[in-house]
Amino acid sequence: MNRQWLYAKQPVGKIGKDTFQWHEGAIPVPRDGEVLVRTRMLSLDPANRAWMMGKTYRDALEPGQVMSGFAIGEVVEAKSGGLKPGDIVEGDWGWQDYAALPTRRLTKRTTDAPLELLIGPLSVTGLTAYFGLLEVGQPKPGDTVLVSAAAGAVGSMAGQIARLAGCRVVGTAGGQDKCDWLVKELGFDAAVDYKAGGVFRALRVACPNGIDVYFDNTGGPVLDAALSLMNLKGRIVCCGNVSQYDVEKPAPGPMAVPGLVVTKRLRLEGFIVMDFYDRRAEAEARLARWISEGRIKAELDIFDGLERAPEALIGLFEGNNRGKRAVRV
Amino acid sequence: MNRQWLYAKQPVGKIGKDTFQWHEGAIPVPRDGEVLVRTRMLSLDPANRAWMMGKTYRDALEPGQVMSGFAIGEVVEAKSGGLKPGDIVEGDWGWQDYAALPTRRLTKRTTDAPLELLIGPLSVTGLTAYFGLLEVGQPKPGDTVLVSAAAGAVGSMAGQIARLAGCRVVGTAGGQDKCDWLVKELGFDAAVDYKAGGVFRALRVACPNGIDVYFDNTGGPVLDAALSLMNLKGRIVCCGNVSQYDVEKPAPGPMAVPGLVVTKRLRLEGFIVMDFYDRRAEAEARLARWISEGRIKAELDIFDGLERAPEALIGLFEGNNRGKRAVRV
Repeated sequence: MNRQWLYAKQPVGKIGKDTFQWHEGAIPVPRDGEVLVRTRMLSLDPANRAWMMGKTYRDALEPGQVMSGFAIGEVVEAKSGGLKPGDIVEGDWGWQDYAALPTRRLTKRTTDAPLELLIGPLSVTGLTAYFGLLEVGQPKPGDTVLVSAAAGAVGSMAGQIARLAGCRVVGTAGGQDKCDWLVKELGFDAAVDYKAGGVFRALRVACPNGIDVYFDNTGGPVLDAALSLMNLKGRIVCCGNVSQYDVEKPAPGPMAVPGLVVTKRLRLEGFIVMDFYDRRAEAEARLARWISEGRIKAELDIFDGLERAPEALIGLFEGNNRGKRAVRV
Repeated sequence: MNRQWLYAKQPVGKIGKDTFQWHEGAIPVPRDGEVLVRTRMLSLDPANRAWMMGKTYRDALEPGQVMSGFAIGEVVEAKSGGLKPGDIVEGDWGWQDYAALPTRRLTKRTTDAPLELLIGPLSVTGLTAYFGLLEVGQPKPGDTVLVSAAAGAVGSMAGQIARLAGCRVVGTAGGQDKCDWLVKELGFDAAVDYKAGGVFRALRVACPNGIDVYFDNTGGPVLDAALSLMNLKGRIVCCGNVSQYDVEKPAPGPMAVPGLVVTKRLRLEGFIVMDFYDRRAEAEARLARWISEGRIKAELDIFDGLERAPEALIGLFEGNNRGKRAVRV
C-alpha cells in the first residue's frame, strides 16, 4: 500500500489539517527509465507553504495532487541503468511512502552520512545557508551579520557559518528560550526576541556598528528594521519571506525600498540554492567537516511517521521548531 | 559681489520659492591652499531635493547654508600649487557666483568639450547612466531594459546606452510628447506615459518578453509594476526615487519586496557614481565619442541666470524638463 498526503485545498490564511487529505493507494509500478523509491525522510520547509499561493521557482501546487516536498529515499526497484536497489537518492516526490520517478528527477547520494543529515544540513538546508551567506552575502571578517528566523533550519546554519567567517553574528527568533539557545549553544554574539516588541531598538542595541549583511528569512518587521540599520554598501540576502507565507493579507512592503537602497547603496538579492549546484560537492564536504569537527551544530527536529507530516508543517508557522524539521517515514 | 541662493527652510511637501532665499555678500578671499572659483554652470538634480530631507550619501542640508549643487566653474585666483587661473573645475559648491575652496574638493577638467556637456552628459549625469546601466545592470544583447523618468537627464542617457548595448529599450515618461520624443528622436523601442493610467498593463504590452534590467529613477508605481514584470534573475538598478522626493507623505513600499525578489532571484542594487570614479576617464572618453558621432543625443535644457535656479529646480518635480537641466551663470 502507498500511503499519501494529498494537497486538498488552497488555504485562506493559516494552513490547517483540512489543507491536507489522507489517501491510501496502490504502490506504483516503475516504467522503463524509472525507479521505484521508498521514502525514508521528508523535509518540512517554509517554502512548502509558498508553493500553495502561486507559481514561484516552480509551478503552484494543484489541489488533488500529492503534497510536494523534498525527500530522501531508497531505491527498491530500478528499470534504469543509472541506479540500483539500495541506492540512496534525494528529490522532490512529496508526502508518500513510494514514488516511481525517472532517474533525471533524482540525485544519488554517495556519502555514508546519516539520513538525518542528508535531509537538511548536508542538502538543501545547509547548502542554502552556505551559498546564500557566503556567495550572495559576501561577508568579511569583522562584519556584523544579522540572521532572521535564526533558530530555524537555514538560519541556524547561516549564523554559525557567519561566525566561522569571523563575523559578529546577531539572530532574531521568537521567544527568549530560542534566543538563549542561539547565544549559549550556537555561539551567536547576540539574539533578539522579535515577539517581545521594540525590534528596531533591540536590534540597534545588538548591532552597535550597524549591519553589513542581513540574511533575511522572514521579510516583515525585521526586514524593515534591518534596512534602517544597514551600513553603506550592505548586502541583504533575500532567502525567504516566512512572516508573510501563512497569512491572509500580506503586510505592506518596506518603506525603505528603494529610498535607502539608493542612498546607502545597498544590494538586495534573491537566490535559489540550485543555481549553485555546480559547486555542491565542495560546499557539502566543507559542511560535513564542520559538523563532524563540532564547529557547527546541526540541530534536528524529527517527527516520526508520515501521518504526522501536516502537524509538523503547521507547527513550523507557529514557530515551534528548532533547527531542521523533518519526518522520518 | 557674490550673489547666492540660500537654503531657507525645510519644505513640507512640495518645494517652492520660499524654500530658497536670495542673498548678496562679499566675494570670498581664498586662503593658502584654496582657489577662488567663478561659477559658470549649475546642475539641477532630483537629488538636490532628497538632500533636504536627511542624511543620504552626504550630510543633510541645513537651513541658512548656501544651497548645494554640483557646478562647473573657472579658477580666477589660486593660492594652491595644483590649479591656476583659467582652469575649468567641477565640484559641489552650490548656488553662488563665487566660492573659495580647497583644491581637494575640486576636480580639474582637461577636455575642451563645451561647458554644457561638462555639466551633465560628460560628468555626473552621463557617468551615472553609464556605470549604473552597464556595471550595476549588466545588460546583455537582446535583454529588455526598462528606464523610468526616461526623458530626464540620466534616463535619456541610460536608455540610449542600453540601445547601443543591443537591448530592447522601453521608457516611461510623463505625457505623450515626451514618449513620442523618446521613440522618434532617441530610438527607444517603446515608451509608456505613466500619467495616462494603467501603467502595469501598458508596460506588459510594451515588454512582451518581460524585463531583464530595470533602471529605476523613480520608485513608486513604476517600480511596483516593473517588479511584477521582471524576468528570473532580473536586475533593478536603484538610481533614484524621484516620485517620492517632493511629497509630504511617501507611498508605501513595494509589496513585491522581498517575496518576488526571492522567488524570481532578483537583484536590487543602489549605487553612487563616485564609487566608479577610478574608471571615469575611460567612461567619459566613450561617452564623448558616442555624442560626437551622433550615436547618443545629449539633450540639454538650459536656464540663463543664477536668479532662475529655484524655478529650474521646482520645475524638475513638475516634470517639465527634457534631458539635462542646468543653469548658466
